[in-house]
Amino acid sequence: MRFNKKDILDIQSLSKDEISMILDTAVGMKEISERPVKKVPTLRGKTIVMFFQEPSTRTKLSFELAAKRLSADTVGISKSSSSIVKGETLVDTAKNLESMRPDVIVMRHFSSGAAYQVAKRVRCSVINAGDGTHAHPSQALLDMMSIRQAKGTLAGLKVSIIGDISHSRVARSNIIGLTRMGSKVSICAPATMIPVGIEQLGCTVDKTIESCVTGADVVMMLRIQKERMGNQLFPTEREYANLYGLNTNRLRLAKDDVLVMHPGPLNRGVEISSDVADADCSMILDQVTNGVALRMALFYLVAGGSRHADTD
Amino acid sequence: MRFNKKDILDIQSLSKDEISMILDTAVGMKEISERPVKKVPTLRGKTIVMFFQEPSTRTKLSFELAAKRLSADTVGISKSSSSIVKGETLVDTAKNLESMRPDVIVMRHFSSGAAYQVAKRVRCSVINAGDGTHAHPSQALLDMMSIRQAKGTLAGLKVSIIGDISHSRVARSNIIGLTRMGSKVSICAPATMIPVGIEQLGCTVDKTIESCVTGADVVMMLRIQKERMGNQLFPTEREYANLYGLNTNRLRLAKDDVLVMHPGPLNRGVEISSDVADADCSMILDQVTNGVALRMALFYLVAGGSRHADTD
Amino acid sequence: MRFNKKDILDIQSLSKDEISMILDTAVGMKEISERPVKKVPTLRGKTIVMFFQEPSTRTKLSFELAAKRLSADTVGISKSSSSIVKGETLVDTAKNLESMRPDVIVMRHFSSGAAYQVAKRVRCSVINAGDGTHAHPSQALLDMMSIRQAKGTLAGLKVSIIGDISHSRVARSNIIGLTRMGSKVSICAPATMIPVGIEQLGCTVDKTIESCVTGADVVMMLRIQKERMGNQLFPTEREYANLYGLNTNRLRLAKDDVLVMHPGPLNRGVEISSDVADADCSMILDQVTNGVALRMALFYLVAGGSRHADTD
Repeated sequence: MRFNKKDILDIQSLSKDEISMILDTAVGMKEISERPVKKVPTLRGKTIVMFFQEPSTRTKLSFELAAKRLSADTVGISKSSSSIVKGETLVDTAKNLESMRPDVIVMRHFSSGAAYQVAKRVRCSVINAGDGTHAHPSQALLDMMSIRQAKGTLAGLKVSIIGDISHSRVARSNIIGLTRMGSKVSICAPATMIPVGIEQLGCTVDKTIESCVTGADVVMMLRIQKERMGNQLFPTEREYANLYGLNTNRLRLAKDDVLVMHPGPLNRGVEISSDVADADCSMILDQVTNGVALRMALFYLVAGGSRHADTD
Repeated sequence: MRFNKKDILDIQSLSKDEISMILDTAVGMKEISERPVKKVPTLRGKTIVMFFQEPSTRTKLSFELAAKRLSADTVGISKSSSSIVKGETLVDTAKNLESMRPDVIVMRHFSSGAAYQVAKRVRCSVINAGDGTHAHPSQALLDMMSIRQAKGTLAGLKVSIIGDISHSRVARSNIIGLTRMGSKVSICAPATMIPVGIEQLGCTVDKTIESCVTGADVVMMLRIQKERMGNQLFPTEREYANLYGLNTNRLRLAKDDVLVMHPGPLNRGVEISSDVADADCSMILDQVTNGVALRMALFYLVAGGSRHADTD
Repeated sequence: MRFNKKDILDIQSLSKDEISMILDTAVGMKEISERPVKKVPTLRGKTIVMFFQEPSTRTKLSFELAAKRLSADTVGISKSSSSIVKGETLVDTAKNLESMRPDVIVMRHFSSGAAYQVAKRVRCSVINAGDGTHAHPSQALLDMMSIRQAKGTLAGLKVSIIGDISHSRVARSNIIGLTRMGSKVSICAPATMIPVGIEQLGCTVDKTIESCVTGADVVMMLRIQKERMGNQLFPTEREYANLYGLNTNRLRLAKDDVLVMHPGPLNRGVEISSDVADADCSMILDQVTNGVALRMALFYLVAGGSRHADTD
């Protein structure tokens, strides 16, 4: 099989086979980061632009490390230094970047859909590293990789996703990807944090965290963005923790071999208690490790892999 | 011929032969960015410091990519992280940088003349990436490269430069360079945006955009800095567009094979209409592509090229 | 001898032999930066994270250049982009970084002790690039390297350190290191800038700069942080210069072959006069040059040197 996508913009445009191919490739990449010399020449002479219009630590770092471990060159443009502050349109910025002949643009943007606008106008590959509240495909893929690594499969698992679904591109991408791979996804959140019609993505909605967690193979907690607390979505952190936080008692309702996941950064004591975050069943740091491997796989597949086998 | 300049600080200190040598070298560099492996080992082990005290997207990115495609190492110091905020003088900062043994310092600074102050005190090469309203030599060189590529020569061409000449280091560097290479340069701008005595650089001043554009081989539009609009240089964007903006009707006054140029970022609908910016005669994105090649040539000539042929 | 430290957190945990080994290694590294090709493959495929939570120019640049000249890959996370602004704990940030498999974390933090907290929780090496008012071991080591280079030894020298001792991690690290290596350290500062009990580190306290400088082999001036002037530590810059600034007259009290040092950035005319800063006896720029070599040595010893001789 050959990977034929130019871009990685969302999960819904990836077939089941393509998702499997990405995860398989990522598993192969993972070992490189464990070597004394963590670097292969695969993408030597390729140029990867990090175009981040929203702050990010771990996602940007993860993409950068992935690029460097494949020997690609990376350059970055950040929000403050960008011509966008001088009134340039997004498409003009993108065409300018393209004119410098990058192979891949990794793009995070505050507007949902921004990565599509860029991808359809440039010949190079675009990887969406998060666009508004819409999609964060590399996060969902690394989550699927982490679950598959621990459970052997994604099919037939019950995955519970709890938290601010409305503002979470992580949640949207995971619901779409996990249901496509055969998992059953249940979500739970305060009514103000569930978008209308979310069931159309193939998940079920639970009223309480207890019913949502019961029998779960995987519990995925979402980060509460404290800055939104003041906006009447929820009264206080304490009340949120009481009603929707994951703690040891609630986790007992899940299967014995449950996995706990969180995309980070953690609000300890709010959406997740410290003992759960640090428990043996927590995959939180494995997710970070797998993130580098998964992003290496994405770079390889769009910029150096089988897609170019005939031409390079 | 050997290139003997330590620094690239402005256009006036470059002879006609030196300009031609830079443009020829850049043409040779251009093909590297079109390869699957866009990287040559020419400057391996050279250190290039990006010292940017003013925000920049495309210029900084262009220099960085140029450095990496020649395998040089780049490190950057930005305004906010700089010791300058702690009260260090520019010369002390420069001497400190020099002590870390860079081969080239690429420098953008808000003060006209800053690059000279640094260059005369350090042994390494300095490339001026824009100093105040004074000079932006790499931009003028890439503009000359772009024109020469399309027209075969610079001699005898009519080049019209329209916009805020007073605040434009791009305009100053281009007027000096183009007239040296044998072009005839006409400029046009509101009276508040033309410096007194500009004709001494060898250009003519036109009262209306129509007379300036008539018969032009090249029309180069300058960016209006919107933040200056409030400073009474011009009433509104709309009035500026009406009197000094380039649109299809005005462009008909130029030669049939006219080229349209703009250093970017564009203010669409202000100094240039969208249909002109996107027309076949627009060289705007070619300028960006050529910019990387031109900067590769500058690095090669000052840090790795014939200047060091005897010693390295 | 083999270097067995995982981390470089402070000077007191380094034995006399370990300090000598670091300085010897740094002397060997220094020549690399003088070559036309300033790069060796020693740390190829190693990942070094620059984790700077306080602004820095020269220290960050120095570490970055050191890493690149050894062919390591560097990635950075800065204060503004960090998850810390999203409420993540320092330990969680550190564990996340570790999960991406770096070999070394270079860390600057506003809290004294932060580097210890991180180092004891991650398997990779941690180099403290300054934590609060506590320690700045690489600065003290490069200072010792610079003195030893000029004087041949550290033993028996009189070293005078003058300035804001209370807020200076540079002073603390130097007092500890120099006394360990056999120097006699005298300090002098306004009473508001001397911590109680500082003599326990093995130095003596002088009342006047004149008595402190008299007979000195080395005079090390500390930077006055102008932003603290308003905090009643001292009335005005002028008065500080009068009472505690180093000038030519005062320097005559020292030995004929005295060395003048300063960690930078300089406040010319405040703690040091311009003629002294630029005199032949000034080692200020040598300190910067040695800084790169010293940091190359630290990277080599913790990440690629004899510590890993059996396993790699």
